[in-house]
Amino acid sequence: MLNFTVGPVMSSKAVRVVGAEQVPYFRTSEFSELMFENERLMLKFTKAPRGSKAVFLTNSSTGAMEAVIMNCFTEKDNVLVVNGGSFGARFAQMCEIHNIPYTEIKLNHGQKLTKEMLYRYDGQPFTGLLVNVDETSTGVLYDTQMIGEFCKKNHLFYVCDCVSSFLADPFNMAECGADVMLTGSQKVLACPPGISIVVLAPIAVERVKKAHVNSMYFDLADALKNMERGQTPFTPAVGILIQINTRLKEIEAAGGEDVEVARVAAQAADFREKIKDLPFEIVSESPANGVTPLHPLHANAYDIFLKLKDEYGIWICPNGGDMKDAIFRVGHIGYLNHDDNTTLVNAFKDLMSKGLL
Amino acid sequence: MLNFTVGPVMSSKAVRVVGAEQVPYFRTSEFSELMFENERLMLKFTKAPRGSKAVFLTNSSTGAMEAVIMNCFTEKDNVLVVNGGSFGARFAQMCEIHNIPYTEIKLNHGQKLTKEMLYRYDGQPFTGLLVNVDETSTGVLYDTQMIGEFCKKNHLFYVCDCVSSFLADPFNMAECGADVMLTGSQKVLACPPGISIVVLAPIAVERVKKAHVNSMYFDLADALKNMERGQTPFTPAVGILIQINTRLKEIEAAGGEDVEVARVAAQAADFREKIKDLPFEIVSESPANGVTPLHPLHANAYDIFLKLKDEYGIWICPNGGDMKDAIFRVGHIGYLNHDDNTTLVNAFKDLMSKGLL
Repeated sequence: MLNFTVGPVMSSKAVRVVGAEQVPYFRTSEFSELMFENERLMLKFTKAPRGSKAVFLTNSSTGAMEAVIMNCFTEKDNVLVVNGGSFGARFAQMCEIHNIPYTEIKLNHGQKLTKEMLYRYDGQPFTGLLVNVDETSTGVLYDTQMIGEFCKKNHLFYVCDCVSSFLADPFNMAECGADVMLTGSQKVLACPPGISIVVLAPIAVERVKKAHVNSMYFDLADALKNMERGQTPFTPAVGILIQINTRLKEIEAAGGEDVEVARVAAQAADFREKIKDLPFEIVSESPANGVTPLHPLHANAYDIFLKLKDEYGIWICPNGGDMKDAIFRVGHIGYLNHDDNTTLVNAFKDLMSKGLL
Repeated sequence: MLNFTVGPVMSSKAVRVVGAEQVPYFRTSEFSELMFENERLMLKFTKAPRGSKAVFLTNSSTGAMEAVIMNCFTEKDNVLVVNGGSFGARFAQMCEIHNIPYTEIKLNHGQKLTKEMLYRYDGQPFTGLLVNVDETSTGVLYDTQMIGEFCKKNHLFYVCDCVSSFLADPFNMAECGADVMLTGSQKVLACPPGISIVVLAPIAVERVKKAHVNSMYFDLADALKNMERGQTPFTPAVGILIQINTRLKEIEAAGGEDVEVARVAAQAADFREKIKDLPFEIVSESPANGVTPLHPLHANAYDIFLKLKDEYGIWICPNGGDMKDAIFRVGHIGYLNHDDNTTLVNAFKDLMSKGLL
C-alpha cells in the first residue's frame, strides 16, 4: 500500500531495519546516551533557546497535549485557544476538563488567522495561548511568528502544538518565542506512532517544576528529573525511541531541519501542481506543507478514500465528523517522493475517466 | 545480547518481521477486524467472564494502572492496597494523588500474603482491593483465588495488575472474580513496550461507563465506545498492536494460554534447578513464574548486572532503590529457552571461578 495519510506514514529502510531488531533493556548508560542524543537533536531541529529541555512520553500526541495543559496551566489562568478544526476543539475540550478558563478564537474550516483577528484580543487579561500550528484536520498553517509577537506583547505563555508541522513547516522556537512545542513520532519523524515529544523553553521548565499535577503518568517534572540521566519514569516505547534516534541522525546527515522542511515543501508543491486541472478545491486559505485538504467538486470524499484503498492500493486520509463526506486529505510527509505523487494523480485521473471523480 | 530482564524481553521472529513492515493507516475496517481479534484472544486468554471487554491503551503499564484507578474509584471509595514492593507502593501513591482513601497491607520484600494476614481486614468498610499479582520488584506471586474469595465475601471491587504475570502464572478471571485485569505488551506478550491492555468484567464496564473522569486521554468510557467499532480515540501504537495480534495468534496456534503458562513455568523451574548450588538466595517466599529474584550471598547485585552486560553480553534485571545492591532478577519470559539458561548459569560459574560471585 502507498500511504498518503498524515500518520502513521511510511518509514525509511533504516527505521524499518531497527523495527526488526530485538528491543534492548533500557536502564543502561547505553540507552541514556541515545536519549541524550535524541534530546540534543530535538532541541537543534526546533531551534529551541539555550537551556531548553526535551522529554519523551509514551503515548499518542493527544496525551502530550493534555500533559502540557495539566502541567503549564491552572484554574487561575485564562487562555486563548485558536480553534479552526478538530485539534483546536480538542485543546478547548481539555481546558474544559481541567477547569482552565479559556476563550476560543473560532475559525471556519480552512480559514487562516489574520493579525486583525488576533489583535481583537490584545490587552485583555489572558495568560496563555494554545495553537495547533498546522491544524491537521484542515491543513491550515498558522503564523507562529505573528502569534509569538502577540504573546510577547501580552505576556502570554505560548504553546505550539507542532504535531504535524514539525520538520514540515519552518519553525524557530527561539525566534517566535514559543514556551512549549510538542510533536509525535509518526508525522515527519516517520517512525511508528507511540511516542510524543515535548520541548520546553527555560521558562516552561521552571513552570513545570513548580506545578502541582494530579497525575503520576503525566507528571512532566518527573519526566524532566528522569531525563537528567537520560531515562524515563516508566518503561517507555524503547523500540520507537531507537527508531527516532535513527531518523533524527538520518535528517542530520542529510543537512538538518531546514533541508527536511524544504523536501516536504517540494513534495507538497509537486502534488499541488499536478492536481491543478483536477476537480478539487484546496480548502485551506493558508496551506501547511504537510498535508493538502481537498474538497472534491463532484464526488463524495469518503467514497474516494474507499475506492483508492480497495482498488488502487493507496491510502489517502479521510476526514471525520461533519467533514467526512466533503473533505479528504493528502499527506506529503513520510517516505514519499514525486513519483508517488504521480501514481496518486494517475489514480485520480483513472477515477475521472470512469466518471467517479 | 541475551535478555533475561522482565521487559522489554526478546521477541519471536514473526513479531520482529512485523516490526520491519510499514505501519498501515488504521481508520479502516481491516484494522478494526484485527483489533476485534486482539480483544477476542485477550478475553479468551484471561478466561474473562462473558460480557467482558478489552481496551488497548498507548502508554506504559503505569498509565493503565492510573487509568483504572481514575475510572473505577472515587473519593467515596476506601481501598485496600497490597504493598509488597515497588509496584504495590505505586498503587498506593496513585491513590494518594487521586484522593482515594486507602489502607496498605504492607509486606516485607519477598513476603507472601497469607490468608490470615488478609482476613485481618475482613468485615471492615472497604470498597475495593488493588493487587499486583506478581509484585515484579520481588517476584512474589499472590494468590488471586484466595484474594478473590475475600473480595467476594466483602463485596470489594477487585483489580488485578497482571502486568508480568499474564500468561506466566495461572489466572482465571471468571473464577477468581477479578473485576479488572491489566497487562502490558512487553512482558509474556513479548512485543515491544508501548501498549497496555485493560480487561473489564461486565460490572467494571458498567462502572467505567458511569464514571466522571477528569481526563481526556485516560477516559476509559471513550476507549470502550471506540472499541465497539474496533478503534481507539487517538492514534494508537499501531505497529505494536499488529505485533500483539501476531503474538496472540502464535500462542493460540501453540495450544493457548495454559500451554504458554506451562512453558514459562518450565523455563523458571529449569533455571531454579540449575542455580541450586550457586551462592544465591531466592528472596521470594512465593516465587512467580515470570521472574526469579536473587540475593547474591557474597557479591554486589548491581556489580553482577554490569559485569554480565559488559563482559558476557547478557542482560539480567537490576533492582532499583534500596534493593539495588542486594537483589537482581532473572526473567523467564520472552523468547528464551533452556539452553539460554545454561548460558547464563555458565556465566555465573565463570564469575565464581574469578572470585567475583
